[in-house]
Amino acid sequence: MPSQPVFSTSSISIIPLLKLSIIQKGDNVGKQIVDACHQTKLKLADGDLLVVAQTIVSRAEGRIINLSNIVPSSKAKKLAKKLGKPPELVEIILKESKRIVRAEQGHLIVETHHGFVCANAGVDASNVPGKDFVTLLPKDPDYSAKQIRNEILAAFNVDVAVIISDTHGRPFRNGAINIAIGTSGLAPIKNYVGQSDLFGYQLRTTSVAVADELASAAELLMGEADEGIAVVIIRGYPYQQSEASAQELVRDPDRDIFRR
Amino acid sequence: MPSQPVFSTSSISIIPLLKLSIIQKGDNVGKQIVDACHQTKLKLADGDLLVVAQTIVSRAEGRIINLSNIVPSSKAKKLAKKLGKPPELVEIILKESKRIVRAEQGHLIVETHHGFVCANAGVDASNVPGKDFVTLLPKDPDYSAKQIRNEILAAFNVDVAVIISDTHGRPFRNGAINIAIGTSGLAPIKNYVGQSDLFGYQLRTTSVAVADELASAAELLMGEADEGIAVVIIRGYPYQQSEASAQELVRDPDRDIFRR
Repeated sequence: MPSQPVFSTSSISIIPLLKLSIIQKGDNVGKQIVDACHQTKLKLADGDLLVVAQTIVSRAEGRIINLSNIVPSSKAKKLAKKLGKPPELVEIILKESKRIVRAEQGHLIVETHHGFVCANAGVDASNVPGKDFVTLLPKDPDYSAKQIRNEILAAFNVDVAVIISDTHGRPFRNGAINIAIGTSGLAPIKNYVGQSDLFGYQLRTTSVAVADELASAAELLMGEADEGIAVVIIRGYPYQQSEASAQELVRDPDRDIFRR
Repeated sequence: MPSQPVFSTSSISIIPLLKLSIIQKGDNVGKQIVDACHQTKLKLADGDLLVVAQTIVSRAEGRIINLSNIVPSSKAKKLAKKLGKPPELVEIILKESKRIVRAEQGHLIVETHHGFVCANAGVDASNVPGKDFVTLLPKDPDYSAKQIRNEILAAFNVDVAVIISDTHGRPFRNGAINIAIGTSGLAPIKNYVGQSDLFGYQLRTTSVAVADELASAAELLMGEADEGIAVVIIRGYPYQQSEASAQELVRDPDRDIFRR
């Protein structure tokens, strides 16, 4: 039986960034990451990739809302009653949304202004101080990623790629997974178009959402609880350099047969 | 500003299994993995996790169909015409399915007999020799995973967890990602119920599909093309040991608001 040749492919490492300060409103996330690298003597290198949890980016950018200051519209009140959610929360979700995709069985699935289809527009009551406070997704997660990348370039003269990640549920399967909502420095999708398989035939799957897979890989170290890690370094993955947006991961609603 | 304590959390490694033979019908995948470990002097350890691409499991188990031997039903012919697919292929997809979820715009999304919602019931024309041949998903991917795990236990006296992975598309987002269709030795879902966040509040996301995230992490090394790696070792991820089935990842259709 023929043996496949030995590949030069080597291992990928998923490395937690330790000693990161608890990020507060107004903090520069990139600078805090640089500080943590200094403190832990972690030397970043060209080609490293950082996955940064959305929650710290949102906190730093002041994307925090005090629900007790919100006056819900009558539309929000009606929907809140139907779904059993606080009307102030529904008001905020609607403000963050372009359209409602599903509103039933207690779930409010929307398309955000960025185009992401997710529960509650990513509005989140966890990992934010104060019981009436929620975080919103960053306004422009690609820009947030780019800023972090630039801080690292300025501090260490190394070019890394950055992914801003969030945890989303999905149809058909239980359990959430981490996905990419913002990217800088890598192509979010890897195309195999024109490549052939082991036996010379055309490949079925012609594009893979590697940015989502990288976000998922990072989540394995992040966790969700208070012992969580907010920044993870992925080393040894040969991503394709690109200035493409994470918007490439968003399917055109007209081509999405599950919108209807 | 307070610093988070230094965590004992350490890195995770994603390691390709090199020198694996090209798997043929009738091969014992577990034994071939053991052989490749011997050849590459890779020492597996308790707590390692192996992600095995569905395609080699299907080939080994003889889940291969010659489409030129298939006589399509009139239902398959009608659907094939609507979707622009070969009627023999549609016949096989229907045989592998419990129900059709969507059949439009050239897409045939079904629920397989296992309960997985995916395109074409996972029937795949790539990575199988012969132009009229397709592979079907393993009949019982949990059992396939268990067999591989048992071979490794017998050969090396180490208990690993095994995931059988497949590449699936999904609603709302471009690009496919790797997910788990069979598991042995780990809890596919990690529950954070009852845990609190950084500021002591209840967590929003209470369950994470870690088996899917592990499958996605492995895909980063697998690729899809002829230089692909079919088996990947994940080392350093503290999965929860369990004899649970990958069926835990399948959402109950009655609780799935995107089925309708």
